[in-house]
This record gives sequence, C-alpha cells and structure tokens, in this order.
Amino acid sequence: MGGMARIAPLSGFPEWSPEERVVERAVIDTLREVFALHGFAEIETRAVEPVERLAGDSDAAKEIYVLRRLRADDEGESSLGLHFDLTLPFARYVEERQGHLAFPFRRWQIQKVWRGERPQEGRFREFYQADIDIVGRDTLPPHAEAEVAIVMAEALAALGEAFGLPGVTMRLNDRRLVEGFYRGVGVTGVAAALRSVDKLAKIGPDGVRAELQAQGLEGPAVDAILALAEVRSADASFGAEVWRLWDASGASDDEARAQLEAGVSSLAALLDGVNAAVPGTAVADLSIARGLDYYTGAVYETTINGHEDLGSVCSGGRYDSLVAGGGFPGVGMSVGVTRLVSRLVGAGLARASRPVPTAVLVAVVDEESRPASDAVARSLRSRGIPCEVAPTAAKFGKQIQHADRRGIPFVWFPGEAHAVKDIRSGEQVPADPSTWQPPAEDLRPRIVRG
Amino acid sequence: MGGMARIAPLSGFPEWSPEERVVERAVIDTLREVFALHGFAEIETRAVEPVERLAGDSDAAKEIYVLRRLRADDEGESSLGLHFDLTLPFARYVEERQGHLAFPFRRWQIQKVWRGERPQEGRFREFYQADIDIVGRDTLPPHAEAEVAIVMAEALAALGEAFGLPGVTMRLNDRRLVEGFYRGVGVTGVAAALRSVDKLAKIGPDGVRAELQAQGLEGPAVDAILALAEVRSADASFGAEVWRLWDASGASDDEARAQLEAGVSSLAALLDGVNAAVPGTAVADLSIARGLDYYTGAVYETTINGHEDLGSVCSGGRYDSLVAGGGFPGVGMSVGVTRLVSRLVGAGLARASRPVPTAVLVAVVDEESRPASDAVARSLRSRGIPCEVAPTAAKFGKQIQHADRRGIPFVWFPGEAHAVKDIRSGEQVPADPSTWQPPAEDLRPRIVRG
Repeated sequence: MGGMARIAPLSGFPEWSPEERVVERAVIDTLREVFALHGFAEIETRAVEPVERLAGDSDAAKEIYVLRRLRADDEGESSLGLHFDLTLPFARYVEERQGHLAFPFRRWQIQKVWRGERPQEGRFREFYQADIDIVGRDTLPPHAEAEVAIVMAEALAALGEAFGLPGVTMRLNDRRLVEGFYRGVGVTGVAAALRSVDKLAKIGPDGVRAELQAQGLEGPAVDAILALAEVRSADASFGAEVWRLWDASGASDDEARAQLEAGVSSLAALLDGVNAAVPGTAVADLSIARGLDYYTGAVYETTINGHEDLGSVCSGGRYDSLVAGGGFPGVGMSVGVTRLVSRLVGAGLARASRPVPTAVLVAVVDEESRPASDAVARSLRSRGIPCEVAPTAAKFGKQIQHADRRGIPFVWFPGEAHAVKDIRSGEQVPADPSTWQPPAEDLRPRIVRG
Repeated sequence: MGGMARIAPLSGFPEWSPEERVVERAVIDTLREVFALHGFAEIETRAVEPVERLAGDSDAAKEIYVLRRLRADDEGESSLGLHFDLTLPFARYVEERQGHLAFPFRRWQIQKVWRGERPQEGRFREFYQADIDIVGRDTLPPHAEAEVAIVMAEALAALGEAFGLPGVTMRLNDRRLVEGFYRGVGVTGVAAALRSVDKLAKIGPDGVRAELQAQGLEGPAVDAILALAEVRSADASFGAEVWRLWDASGASDDEARAQLEAGVSSLAALLDGVNAAVPGTAVADLSIARGLDYYTGAVYETTINGHEDLGSVCSGGRYDSLVAGGGFPGVGMSVGVTRLVSRLVGAGLARASRPVPTAVLVAVVDEESRPASDAVARSLRSRGIPCEVAPTAAKFGKQIQHADRRGIPFVWFPGEAHAVKDIRSGEQVPADPSTWQPPAEDLRPRIVRG
C-alpha cells in the first residue's frame, strides 16, 4: 500500500483517541444503566433501510446515504440507505414484530446514524444516538410523555455526577397546542409553518417571518405565530398567555380551540410531572417546533446550561401514527451522544485517568523467564486486575519507561521475592501475586473532571 | 406512511429479538472484559473509508458497499465505502496517529462491518466483528503471535463457561512456511496459489487442483501443494512431514528453504506457546491459507468443536507492511460475533432468562396514587434494582398478567403495608421498598444454557 495518498481525517466523521474513547464508552455505559434501571430493553436494528421508507420526509431525504455495491451484478436489488435516526427503524421493527412484543413496549437503542449534511461544530455525518421509546398498542397513557422525559433527565443528571456536566434545561411544547393555535389564526399548511418556526434560532424572527409570508400567510397570522413562539414559563402560567394571544387574534374556530385546549392542559400536566420528579429541569417553551412531521403530542428539546451554543442534546416527541398501519402510538427521546462527548472532551470537562485498561505492567527479567511473568499476570487477571507483560526483557529502567509512556500506574517485578512499584510515587513494596490489590481508584480507568 | 409495501426482513441483515439481543450483548461484554484484562485499549473507527483504500484487495472489492448522497450536490467529494473488516481501518488509524500512540500498541475494537456477498447460513451482509491487534514500531516480538491467540482462546473459553459453548480448535499455519515451500516447488504467483488453497474446504482438492493448473503450475508442484495442505499435527511433528515433502519434491532453492525453515520453527514455537497456556486448543494445520494478501507470518482459524460446519469463528494473522509506509508490524485476530451468536441462539445453546431488564413491576392502585408507586420504583432503583411502574391502574390480576407477558418476575403492591409477589411461585411476602432485595439470580437477565 505504498503509493497511497497521505491520510487526512474525514470531515464530519469523528474518531476519538483511546483516552477519549474511554470517556465516550463511560457515557454510553452510564446511559445504558439508567435505561435498564427503568425497565427499557435493548434492541439493535440493522444500519440500513429501504430508501423509499427513509425518504418520506422531504428535509431529511437529501442527507441520506444510499448504498450500491462497488461491482454490482444485482441491479434487481432494492435500494438501501443508511438510517439517519433510530426512530424510523424502531417503528419498522415494531411493525415487523408486533405479534411478538408485549405492549407497552419499552426499548433503548444506542447506535450510530449517518447524515450527509455539511459538517460543523456539533454536527457530524456519523454519530451515536441513544434513544428510549415507549410504544403502546392502540393507546398510550399520557404519563408516558412525562416518563421518557424523567428518565432522560435522570440519565443526563447521572452524566452530570460522573463527568461534571452542568445541569440541563428541558424545553417542552405540545403539537396539539401549536396546531390548534395555527389553525385558529388561519394556517392551512401547518407542517410547513412548523418547519419554518423550527429554524427560529438559526434564521431569527425576520427569517421566519419571510418564510411564513412566502407560504401565503397574512401579517396578523404571522405576528400571532411569532408571538406564540415567545411564550415561556417554568410553570402552568404559559396557558394564560396562550389564551390572551388567542383572544387577541380574534380566532373563533371551535375545533381548533378544542385542540389548543387539549394541548395546553396536556403540556401543563407534562411540565408538572417532570418538575415534580426532577425539580427545576423543565420549562414550557412554545418556540419548540421540531422539524419532523410525525409528532402529534409532546415535543422536547434539551440544552446544557452554559452550553446552549451546542444546540439540543436530547430531543424527541410523541407520535401516534409512525408505525405503518397505525395502532401503535409512541413517545421517545434521543440523546446526541457524539455531540455531548465532543463537548465533554473538547471543552476539557472530562478526561480518562489513563488511556489503557492496564493497571500493572509485569516486567520480564529475561526471555527465558517470560513464563514466570506470564504466570504473575495470569494470577492478577484471575482476580480482575487488568495487566500486560512487558514486550521485551529490556533493562528495568526501560520497562518502567514503557509503562509510563502507556499510562500504566504499576510495574511488577517477579522473582523469588516479588515487588510492585507505583511509578507515580516511586514507592516499591513487596507483594504476593495471589493477594495484592491496587487501590480501588487505580483498578480501571476512571473519568476525571476537567 | 400508509400505502407502504408490506415489510419483509432483509436477507443478510440480521436483527435479534430483545431476548436474543441480551445474548449478543452478553457475548460482547464478555469479550470486552477479557480484552481489557489483557491490557487492550478500546478504539472505534468511523464506518467509512475512502474507496480506493478499501478496494486494494481484488477479492474483497466486489463486496464493498459504496455510499452516495441521495441528492448529491457535491460531486467533488471523494468516494466513501463501508468498511468490510476492522483491520484496514485500524492500520489507517495507526498511520494517522503514529505520533500519539505508545508502541507496542494494543487495541480491541468491536463494531459492525458490511459485505455485499450472497447471504447464506453463517454469512451476513452486516455483522459484528470483535478484533484485537498488537502493533509494534519497527519490530514486533514473536511472542506477540502467541499472545493474541492465547487471549482469544481465553475469550472463547470465557464464552464457553457463560454460554455452554463447546471447546474450540485453533488451526495455525505460517505464511513463511507456505511461501518458502511454494517457491521451492516452483510457484511464482504465491498470492494467487494461496487464494486457491484457501477454497479447499469449499471446492475440494479437485477444484483447487484445477485452479492451480489454470495458474500454469505443473502436476508435481500441484501435488506437492495439495500434500502440504494435508499436514496436521497437535505438536511440532508437522515439521518432519514438511521436510519429507520438501525432499520428495526435489526443491533446491536456498532462499526458499531458509524461508521455509523460519516458518517451520516459528510455527512450532507458536504452537508450543499457545498449548502451554491453553492446553489442547491449538493444532498445526497447513491447509490454513487465509485469502488476504497482507499476512506475512502466523495465520489462524478457529472452529467450534462439533460446529465445524459454521466455519471459522476467529481468524487472523501477522502482517508486517499493512500500515502504509511500513515500519509497523502487527498481529491480530477477529471474532465473528454475529456468526457465533446466530449459532448460540439458533441451536438453542443459550438464551436469556428474561427479555427485559425489569425485575419488578410496581403495581398502581389508582391513577391518583401513581406518585406513591413511582416513589417505590425510585427507592428500588436507587439500590440498583431495575423496575417499572404499571402502565394503567387496571385490576391487579391484569397487572400481574402484564408482568407475566413481559417476563417480569416480581410484582410490588404498594400501600400502608407493602407486599411483593413472585409471580412464578405465587408466593407473596410483606416488603420494605428501602431494604427488599430480589434473589441475586433474578436481579438482571441471566444467560441460561440450552
């Protein structure tokens, strides 16, 4: 492979150093444990879906990576694309296995997804998502909308404890509230209006106004939509503000009003439920739109306090008709793991105590006695102590240097009288391979707060 | 998504039920723990590589999945393909980060890979591989070749203990042995001859003979090659047989002889080293060729005893020039995780004790008292007991039925006097949410041997 072009990292496809991967792995393991404690079962879905199933949503379609075999001799095969989230594949999984799952079905799923969008800070082309969803058969009780938010709030709090991640703010809204309001003020293309409002943070009120006008909306309707998006509250008081705007708009459609009413009371209950379990976490934020068509109830976005520039790190919502054929209402949220990890390591919030699992390097006196060093290592490993044997029988000084370069805290010297040295302090003590234990904090790599 | 075509699983893209995923997850966690105990650090590489780097090996090239964006507006982008193994990406990772890694560098990597080959029993288009490699700078001591085999033998033995997997047989060969012998009997296209011999199990000796003749080899050379591929031994006695064949062939090339000699003694040492650590595991099997060009020393294949029809579940070898620019000799082996898991679950060797993590379903007396049930669940979770709260305040009989359908062993009845029922035995006892513990074997899903 000699004449190959010089290697450059691919933009948008992040790869971590071994030390950074320790952090990512710890984040994933922490999420996985919280999800399991709440009774979510793990599934994995294949990385590919038929393109026609992925391409339904017009905005996401241009980001899909389609596969073809390099030397295709099978033109008859249906076209496959890499999934761009874990929600659509999960809905397909439920559709396929509905006869074999017990509902409400609760699952977690942590996998990579791919989007061919322009890479930028916090946006990747390949990244991990960590999802939980609860899907019912025919009905899904409203407290499920609070439950997924509470589980995610606890998961993010667990990351906070472990990694010094600051607290988070969960911004909640409800699609029925927004749809009822929009229809009341005369919007007919609700999905298009929502996609425009979803860009509020990116293009600002003037940008959104221009898009809504281009959709044929009159000035008063646009004003009302933008005013609604400014409503925030940490308690149920957002309701009074919504009704004030409704009355001011002169809207009078009874059906739209009923929908708005359902949304307002549902959002108030959701806000109450989440803040009762994890006080101070959730706010009603009526600018939260979510670009996806399929949401029908609660929608969520979550920012890290002091890191709002990173965008949402945990989003989702309720969907009533995502599983083809209907009849399986669900609600779910998704953590942007790679985005989170990129900030944790990029801003120095967390790092690994060492890049290798190895706690002990067993030195080798000479190649003839390598089996004696192997035996020490075997004994330590049998008691759960990660170790490796020195690659060569170099002078002990060189072997200690090797441990130091690899980040290994202890070097073991085998012999008639075994000894182990903490190479950080220089302290060396006699030790028995069948009983010695490193200090608990040195047994495995730990996460150290920045 | 109403009018969508009926869903059928995609051939070659396996997906497990939640219960089967418990088994796959346990296999992966077991491998990961053994690798860490031996001082291998985890890395992950992106799923894609530039196509021109993947397509080097002609046999693998036609299996590569190439990506394009569904609505590409970026024709200038270099072409990317999904990786088909973890060895090439690892070599590229080492090349990219050589200034930041401490050598010998030891890594494990468990990720999905993709190959567009025709799906069949034990062969998939998307599957997990679990790799370990040791890569040196400039030199790599020969005991590294034994070490990776020993680690993998221990990893497979750990799976055996946990899952009732039968023992394995590791078949070892050495590329220098084979190349020296081939060159001695007059083979000039060693790589092509090796690729043919690699198909021995698939197309039989007659098929291999036809291919070798088509490559222009004379009858006696073909006979010698096929005779070499029949040599097997559990100890160093294969050496005598090799030299007998060499002498019978009338070969006389000194350079080839020296190469053969190096291979014979290296293979004997390897066999010794592996069987000393894990007795009875390794045999010399001179039919082991491995189709890949880049191997330069030890090559390995591993079959499960009694499941030889599954093919190799753990293969690899030594490579001296895989990292572009040279100077980083390495050795590695790769477990075909999906192939293993498909047999474990397909042949009923292992199953999960339950499909959900949930140990306890906390019943709900009525919707008003749901917060009391939530509090019980919170208390149990704080002590590491996975639980969930009943979705509705149905009659207790219905709630017990729900736990039963989901595979949850315990139902908790909150109240003035709390009680917990083992729904398998029907036994119900008073219990305190702040102290009660389920039996250890019920705390998490376990793997049950078939």
